Amino acid sequence: MTLPAFRPCRSLPAVLGLALLALPPLALPPLLPRALAQPAAATIPLPEPQGQTLLLQSADRADYGPLAEQFLTQANLAYCGVASMVMVLNSLAVPAPAAAGYGSYRFWTQDNVFEAAATRAVLSPEVVARQGMTLQELRGLLASHGLQARAIHGDRLSLAQFRLLVRSNLARADDRLLVNYDRKALGQAGGGHISPLAAYNATTDRVLILDVARYRYPSVWVPLVDLWQAIRTNDTASGLSRGVVVVRRI
Amino acid sequence: MTLPAFRPCRSLPAVLGLALLALPPLALPPLLPRALAQPAAATIPLPEPQGQTLLLQSADRADYGPLAEQFLTQANLAYCGVASMVMVLNSLAVPAPAAAGYGSYRFWTQDNVFEAAATRAVLSPEVVARQGMTLQELRGLLASHGLQARAIHGDRLSLAQFRLLVRSNLARADDRLLVNYDRKALGQAGGGHISPLAAYNATTDRVLILDVARYRYPSVWVPLVDLWQAIRTNDTASGLSRGVVVVRRI
Repeated sequence: MTLPAFRPCRSLPAVLGLALLALPPLALPPLLPRALAQPAAATIPLPEPQGQTLLLQSADRADYGPLAEQFLTQANLAYCGVASMVMVLNSLAVPAPAAAGYGSYRFWTQDNVFEAAATRAVLSPEVVARQGMTLQELRGLLASHGLQARAIHGDRLSLAQFRLLVRSNLARADDRLLVNYDRKALGQAGGGHISPLAAYNATTDRVLILDVARYRYPSVWVPLVDLWQAIRTNDTASGLSRGVVVVRRI
Repeated sequence: MTLPAFRPCRSLPAVLGLALLALPPLALPPLLPRALAQPAAATIPLPEPQGQTLLLQSADRADYGPLAEQFLTQANLAYCGVASMVMVLNSLAVPAPAAAGYGSYRFWTQDNVFEAAATRAVLSPEVVARQGMTLQELRGLLASHGLQARAIHGDRLSLAQFRLLVRSNLARADDRLLVNYDRKALGQAGGGHISPLAAYNATTDRVLILDVARYRYPSVWVPLVDLWQAIRTNDTASGLSRGVVVVRRI
């Protein structure tokens, strides 16, 4: 299996060690807050007691309940965007098609999410399985399902704007926030990735990523500033910076 | 698709309405606590604010974090026991085989959980897909993976013993508790089912079921007494009552 470079979810386990060794020091402009000049702070796994405590103490966690109920493992190494999209559709209770093998039950799966011609017109499942998807493609796929989807590239957001966006979104249950980021800026091995955000902890200024590559990393609380750096990285597949997609039912 | 009667997860959506209409009144012996003589109390969905509040207020929730991180939808209408088993294996970090399509990443799936000959000797995936599984078969499948697994039929447990078992298990992170129950005793449509328990709320005396049939019902907080009634029902496939399986790494 060969995947083109610089697409989400592309990194294969064989290169994990190399990716870690090759982690470059962050090139930082002067005059940034002190936190930015430090190496990425340790992530805190959600399943562990400290991660659960951060969740208990979070005030902005309206998205957590609906998303955790729909938590998925991406169906293949390139499907991080697809799994994230399916979690959004199910958690917002968007009317779903039938699912093969489940009788008349209707829910979104990583297969039937490509059934509509309007969706396949944006991007085919075969292309996604080979290449992953860019931020704008993720936005287009969500919009093809009748959702209001707005992509914001990371380099258009100040840290304060990003924090405001995260808090206001995660405090409301009727919208969702997906992030397209570079794992390396979080101190993780790998490259581009997509997952939903579920909660914000104000005391620690950390945000919770429900990581759909569950075979690789658990869900983690990361410093908001690290995630901000991670969405400002360049995606060479698009030539643009990564970023966020804000999703809402119309 | 035809499934033999009285096995877990066997109920098909077409019979939902009939199952509800046919719900018999509970035949209750005299002198039971007042709560038992009432119809099943309403379930409280976990994803909704009230369900999240019960989770926040739960003191016995050590299993919730690890299980929620591994939450799965059963792979077909008869695989409730398989999905529950896979959640247990992943959440206890039992060393896993490789998973097809995921490179060298190793984790338990509803496919590779049947790879070992010792597992297939207990029950084949084909048989489970047709018939589901009984409580003792669930125990045997878990034991085949080197886990300590103890099945307790519901009619061997008093309400007080069941409460003690639930609380002590869910207060510790290193063991798991699976329930095999009849949905009807919880006021739900359907028949026999299997899912893991994740938390207990003492104030309301309710227990949290992470329901692997996510296409059908959300995870719910149910009165412990209702679940106790639900595990004391007869499974005509075995001729024995349903019950619980306590699982621990050796």
